[in-house]
Amino acid sequence: MKIILALDFGGTKLAAGTVKVGSREWLRYERRLSPANADAISDIDIMRSLIDSVLDGSKPDAIGVSFGGPVDAATGIVRLSHHVPGWENIPLKQLLEEDYHAPTSVDNDANVAAFGEHRFGAGQGYDSLFYITISTGVGGGWILNNQSWSGASGMAGEIGHIVVDPSGPICLCGKRGCVERFASGPYIAQNARELLEKETQDSPINNRGEILRYLVGNDLNLVTGQVVSAAAGAGDELAQEVMYKAAWALGVGIGNVANLMNPQRFILGGGVTKAGETFWSVVRKVARETALPEVNFEIVRALLGDDAPLWGAVALGLDVVC
Amino acid sequence: MKIILALDFGGTKLAAGTVKVGSREWLRYERRLSPANADAISDIDIMRSLIDSVLDGSKPDAIGVSFGGPVDAATGIVRLSHHVPGWENIPLKQLLEEDYHAPTSVDNDANVAAFGEHRFGAGQGYDSLFYITISTGVGGGWILNNQSWSGASGMAGEIGHIVVDPSGPICLCGKRGCVERFASGPYIAQNARELLEKETQDSPINNRGEILRYLVGNDLNLVTGQVVSAAAGAGDELAQEVMYKAAWALGVGIGNVANLMNPQRFILGGGVTKAGETFWSVVRKVARETALPEVNFEIVRALLGDDAPLWGAVALGLDVVC
Repeated sequence: MKIILALDFGGTKLAAGTVKVGSREWLRYERRLSPANADAISDIDIMRSLIDSVLDGSKPDAIGVSFGGPVDAATGIVRLSHHVPGWENIPLKQLLEEDYHAPTSVDNDANVAAFGEHRFGAGQGYDSLFYITISTGVGGGWILNNQSWSGASGMAGEIGHIVVDPSGPICLCGKRGCVERFASGPYIAQNARELLEKETQDSPINNRGEILRYLVGNDLNLVTGQVVSAAAGAGDELAQEVMYKAAWALGVGIGNVANLMNPQRFILGGGVTKAGETFWSVVRKVARETALPEVNFEIVRALLGDDAPLWGAVALGLDVVC
Repeated sequence: MKIILALDFGGTKLAAGTVKVGSREWLRYERRLSPANADAISDIDIMRSLIDSVLDGSKPDAIGVSFGGPVDAATGIVRLSHHVPGWENIPLKQLLEEDYHAPTSVDNDANVAAFGEHRFGAGQGYDSLFYITISTGVGGGWILNNQSWSGASGMAGEIGHIVVDPSGPICLCGKRGCVERFASGPYIAQNARELLEKETQDSPINNRGEILRYLVGNDLNLVTGQVVSAAAGAGDELAQEVMYKAAWALGVGIGNVANLMNPQRFILGGGVTKAGETFWSVVRKVARETALPEVNFEIVRALLGDDAPLWGAVALGLDVVC
């Protein structure tokens, strides 16, 4: 019986699991939050204890790893983490191979999650797809011809930084009007806060944003993407406007990508996609209007949720061992 | 000695050539303009006479075909031509295989030209590239992992219909602000004509556009992309503004594509790219600003010119026979 060890180094959490080759259920599975002051060394230490626990004395036949940041997939060397310091140039594949004596494959989380959805989720049976995660950031991973495409230097998939409105607000990347600037959770919250502040000054008796204010007890610091989404669902017009713009940006991005790459499916995951049917119908409508009439595609929900990277890591391990 | 027969069904011209396997020179080569009232049958008739001439009694070992319009590459069935009527659902691969008794491979001209530049031109030694042709339209073809990627239904590469300015002018596809709406030859001409008409009304003593007017003897119907480009080179500010906007749109499109797919090279061909160094430097600067800092790429000139599709057809034929 061959065993695959799957690891997920997320920005804020760490997870490890084992599966038997051929099985679609976890043999063992553990997840732990990264501490607030985590660095690469502490993350690796925590992961080692998770690994020891899920291996429970057995030896893995292959290891698959999802890493939350840019990775050179060919060498398995991490470039950096945008969330946790100290990951610069850590040879993660080599470290794991030396410690656990099993062939190891490492890739970026968006690519690995795409691989997971392709093998075990909403992408089964499709040979081309683009997986998009819309949460703290907006990123994606490609499957083309049934293979992962991560770009010449591992940077493919950055749909979050496609410009959809050159006269839009400035994004953290320095450009104006990126998809992420409208559609990520933190920017949805920021856009709502800014509208609330502006509208209160402009017309204090306006009742737009009333539900949103109510939900955060009038403390604008408590506005999150999730709260904006809830307020929109409850009929708050200001929140609906912000969510519309998020869905619009995502729809334009997806339509542009459809024209450029013509994949069969777009698979959307991440917290923001829990925003309800109105959000989804705007995404689908705008994407359809943006794509050429001859370009066909489907936009569907991810099936694996937060476990997509870990199941993708299983798929990486399977490809090493089989 | 094995012989490859290469065919190019362009929108306005037809070409055929033969090469020996291993050679990079044409054995024979013929090109003819399509008549004004051409249809699929007349184009096929003309092509047959070109084929007879270049084969000169010999038998081809494989046939590669570039077709100017959407093709189902798997079956070799043409969907349609946007320029020549009667091509709907013509089984071109089957027709040629029956007539010339040689295995045949057919694909869309942008994909085939990308393949040509990859094998024989500016893409030699690069395993990922996007070839863009900027002339009557703006389209492209992908090489990823040294293979052509033409999309789930053969529609990949439509960078011309990526939206770069949602409040821009309306494109023939119905959307606003597509790359093609700013950067194709006919739209460059139209944009210049419209500016000339508008500025003359608004401020008749303005001397912007004077060189452009001079070049066409004040007959605005004679304005073409090429003339606008020449006027810009000669210092005409109105023409420079139009060319800047074309280069800007192309640069935004390329930067977006770099973020999404991270290819090593962008290879640019087509009449508009003859616009001179100012045009190229704007394209490069805007693309660099649009792409994330970690995303590296080069933007280079196509090397094969109008023969890119025919050399790509040679490459298709070589893949069939070798």
